[in-house]
Amino acid sequence: MKIPIVRNVLEESDALARRNHERFAEHGIYAVNMMSSPGAGKTTLLIKTITELKSRGFRCGVIEGDITSTIDSERLMPLAIPVVQANTSPFGGDCHVGSHLVASALEMLPLTDLDFLFIENIGNLVCPAEFYLGEHLKVVVLSTPEGEDKPLKYPLMFRECRLCLVSKIDLLPHLDVNMMTLRNHIEQVNGELPILMVSAKTGTGVTTWVDWLENARRTEPALNLELSSDS
Amino acid sequence: MKIPIVRNVLEESDALARRNHERFAEHGIYAVNMMSSPGAGKTTLLIKTITELKSRGFRCGVIEGDITSTIDSERLMPLAIPVVQANTSPFGGDCHVGSHLVASALEMLPLTDLDFLFIENIGNLVCPAEFYLGEHLKVVVLSTPEGEDKPLKYPLMFRECRLCLVSKIDLLPHLDVNMMTLRNHIEQVNGELPILMVSAKTGTGVTTWVDWLENARRTEPALNLELSSDS
Repeated sequence: MKIPIVRNVLEESDALARRNHERFAEHGIYAVNMMSSPGAGKTTLLIKTITELKSRGFRCGVIEGDITSTIDSERLMPLAIPVVQANTSPFGGDCHVGSHLVASALEMLPLTDLDFLFIENIGNLVCPAEFYLGEHLKVVVLSTPEGEDKPLKYPLMFRECRLCLVSKIDLLPHLDVNMMTLRNHIEQVNGELPILMVSAKTGTGVTTWVDWLENARRTEPALNLELSSDS
Repeated sequence: MKIPIVRNVLEESDALARRNHERFAEHGIYAVNMMSSPGAGKTTLLIKTITELKSRGFRCGVIEGDITSTIDSERLMPLAIPVVQANTSPFGGDCHVGSHLVASALEMLPLTDLDFLFIENIGNLVCPAEFYLGEHLKVVVLSTPEGEDKPLKYPLMFRECRLCLVSKIDLLPHLDVNMMTLRNHIEQVNGELPILMVSAKTGTGVTTWVDWLENARRTEPALNLELSSDS
């Protein structure tokens, strides 16, 4: 008798992620996995981001990952876009969004009507970094009140991501946080990681971040948009 | 052949935690498991807390939980107290401190010379809430910039803890956070949870929190200190 081992669970997770990735490609959807500590301001930033993308004619959807509650989905309601709340509590309160949860959420989203899909992961700087969901872009949002040392203490997250958004920069005058030190720490763990500074409260940096996103979608090889009329 | 199952790992974890608990009792050590999101200010608060406890004649030790790095232990060096850095990266970068890690750390600490032992858990509002380490007190530190909704989104943490410290209250004038709403959310998930407000930066609330700790140690039934001369 062959005993199934844990490795198979990870293999299944990756296989589902690759299937999600294929579905994104079929529909020209650029998928963004947004990760951070709890309370770094992902939802508020998402509202500003999607408002700006909508004004540029892009169609957006969101998978809201949480252990429990529908608080974040409710906050997105005024945007009038497709949102699926993906709670992990039926899965034992998992501390990250899994590729199976994304796969289930895709069944409930109008894929033919989306240009961008945001997966707001569970607030956690550790576990979400370990799982590929099929996304094109992993973004880590680091809020200024969290301090300068987070990249050194949670290096995997900063190594796995392709963009770091430093959020709540409006609070900098009230904090003992040195942006130079923070930048140095990010560079120490990932010298290739671009950093954009944003404040969802004041709107500072949102245009630059949305420009970045728009360009990332247009030039994403997996979507092959530069040659199509859809770009 | 009997196949070992995952349940046994949890049983072993609990057995080790109970052994840790017994060792604390043998030595009259009150053990505090401090948990929070990354960057909620646990280490800064710990420095203020231990400074105050030392001034009252108490002997303190710290187990510093991190995935990697010795940043927090180094920050505690000026206190001149026993500190053990417990990194989980050799255990695959575990997202919480385990009872085995505490057991190993106890081998390196001068147990006969301690009144308080603080276990600074890994910054994470999810997984650390699930594991008993043998401690007498679980405290959740929630920093004001994290917003009002964290208790509703991470309810297990707020149900497992016996005290909530709301930290960084000096930032309240600069945030859109309503303390009444935050209190209501905490009450919704755990009506029994006492809340203390602190600012490690200004020192506000530190005396009250240390009074609370001192009383909690004196009246902890597992330590039986009220009858001994040690209290």
